[in-house]
Amino acid sequence: MTKLALAFDLGGTELRGALVERDGAVAARVSAPTMAGAGSEAVIGQIIALAGTLLAEHPQAKVAGIGMCAPGPLDPKAGIVIGPPTLAGWHDVPLIDILSRQFGLPVRLENDANAAALGEWRFGAGRGSGSLVFVTVSTGIGGGVVADGHIYHGRRGLAAEIGHMTITGEGDRCFCGAVGCFEAVASGTALGRRATRLTAPGDGSLLRRLSGDGDVSARHVVEAARAGDVNALELVDAEAKWLGIGFTNLLHLYSPELIVMGGGLANGFDLLAPGIRATIEQRAMPAYRDVPIVPAELGDRAGLIGAASLILWEGEPGAPLAIAQDEDSGPSKRADAREANHG
Amino acid sequence: MTKLALAFDLGGTELRGALVERDGAVAARVSAPTMAGAGSEAVIGQIIALAGTLLAEHPQAKVAGIGMCAPGPLDPKAGIVIGPPTLAGWHDVPLIDILSRQFGLPVRLENDANAAALGEWRFGAGRGSGSLVFVTVSTGIGGGVVADGHIYHGRRGLAAEIGHMTITGEGDRCFCGAVGCFEAVASGTALGRRATRLTAPGDGSLLRRLSGDGDVSARHVVEAARAGDVNALELVDAEAKWLGIGFTNLLHLYSPELIVMGGGLANGFDLLAPGIRATIEQRAMPAYRDVPIVPAELGDRAGLIGAASLILWEGEPGAPLAIAQDEDSGPSKRADAREANHG
Repeated sequence: MTKLALAFDLGGTELRGALVERDGAVAARVSAPTMAGAGSEAVIGQIIALAGTLLAEHPQAKVAGIGMCAPGPLDPKAGIVIGPPTLAGWHDVPLIDILSRQFGLPVRLENDANAAALGEWRFGAGRGSGSLVFVTVSTGIGGGVVADGHIYHGRRGLAAEIGHMTITGEGDRCFCGAVGCFEAVASGTALGRRATRLTAPGDGSLLRRLSGDGDVSARHVVEAARAGDVNALELVDAEAKWLGIGFTNLLHLYSPELIVMGGGLANGFDLLAPGIRATIEQRAMPAYRDVPIVPAELGDRAGLIGAASLILWEGEPGAPLAIAQDEDSGPSKRADAREANHG
Repeated sequence: MTKLALAFDLGGTELRGALVERDGAVAARVSAPTMAGAGSEAVIGQIIALAGTLLAEHPQAKVAGIGMCAPGPLDPKAGIVIGPPTLAGWHDVPLIDILSRQFGLPVRLENDANAAALGEWRFGAGRGSGSLVFVTVSTGIGGGVVADGHIYHGRRGLAAEIGHMTITGEGDRCFCGAVGCFEAVASGTALGRRATRLTAPGDGSLLRRLSGDGDVSARHVVEAARAGDVNALELVDAEAKWLGIGFTNLLHLYSPELIVMGGGLANGFDLLAPGIRATIEQRAMPAYRDVPIVPAELGDRAGLIGAASLILWEGEPGAPLAIAQDEDSGPSKRADAREANHG
């Protein structure tokens, strides 16, 4: 059996683990609700427990290392989770040190949007391209940029914080404190909020019927738009315009070969695409207008697969590491893997 | 004598040439008003004539190659000037081919903002940094990004078109057709326009006295602000806010180690800096707030020096080229230089 990577995608809601093969195939998956309020030790305990489950179920697996993604801000080179807003009690947690000591394996860390960008680039919608911008549109908006064969990190790995790019002077204040962030006007949350304001409980609208007269979510808007609901179609149009403005900026700033849209709202990609395209046609300078905008292909596996690829494909970020596809087994498996980097 | 590069900075108004040494020193300079309306052949004739002047004045110069910058859009790898709006009759001009055939020397081409970014990074305000974003604020706004030791090019060399990043929904329509471009609200032109609207010919304001009752320019605003004029100080505050919003986006998107501000408006950098800083403090996420924003150091030589460095320091963009600092002369000078790349 070829070598596998243990991969973890640490989200504010769910902690996912997987054994991933070198071709991006997911050999096994586990998950658990993240104990997001319990601090870093508890969550690291969950990671160790899930790893134990995966390894117990696949005792024959030769694990080359652990690829891990977590919410930003984090420093991928130093291997430190700086302080994600969705995880209480995480402050400068040296996750690579902790996990590599626990498992005696190489560990790589990347922020979740960057890992998903890598996953989509290597195994998903961006296969074969030289560069891409991955945009995840969900509760918030995040992004990752692949250029010249690697993640564009910037200082401290903090590049591509695209959700907090100012694109307008209007709209609700963003949780970050600014007005006009891409995320504040174009996330799934923003779309749901507009739909909720447009309707009222008991008004008989399709949006409220779908939401059981509760707050309307982006998912309800997409569902209602598919049914031809006029309100929902207008909301989708406005959403596509905001996405188109943000995407146009990404084209002008990064000039990627393609933009890949993922996240929950990618479920409505077919409905949004015409409006996104029209806005780009209208606003982008001519040389950027023909860049494809495509939906993500890996869904919620993108982060796991991208994180695994940090182990199986190359050592980025951080020190040299490139685990060879090694058919041998032996007592010095890890030493071999490390030597392979310097070969 | 060590080798020099011939460098040209082709602007819509002025064509500048220089002989540049390996340490960035400018050994000789020439310039001429660009025959911008006369088409590419006429302007290429001007380049050849200026080269002749420089070489005639410095017959002992050992020229290793020609580094050239020109307005975008251009394709640095293919060596093609695609069609700058400020130069009539330039459509897909293969400038590298033309000049290398003319001179029998290696030629490198880069867009002007990228060349200036390289110049400031190697010899100016960004010396010693690992990454920077260079922003030129003048008639328009342009930019160049250096990361991991080279220009961030993107597809067709079109990355960092930061002037056409949408940052608001208000203001005058940009020449590109969109509303809310960084350039449309924050360029020197935009500042001058606001000052012109705020005042009227004959109103006795300092701004109009400085402009001789004509249109007020950004330069007049800076001059009046230095004299303590209240109108001008308010205009500077508003300008700094717009620059701060744009710079915050650049921090979030590229996460550079520093931002270098050049262009005509950098003459007012000391007046603008407090307002830029305050806006960044207010809008940037905490991890980005301590990134230095500094004025450019090379002035209008940045493009020339950066273009020269393409020849003298490395082959970027395009094919391998690294002209050795070669004290020998001999008949096969260029062959030697090419071989040095593969050594």
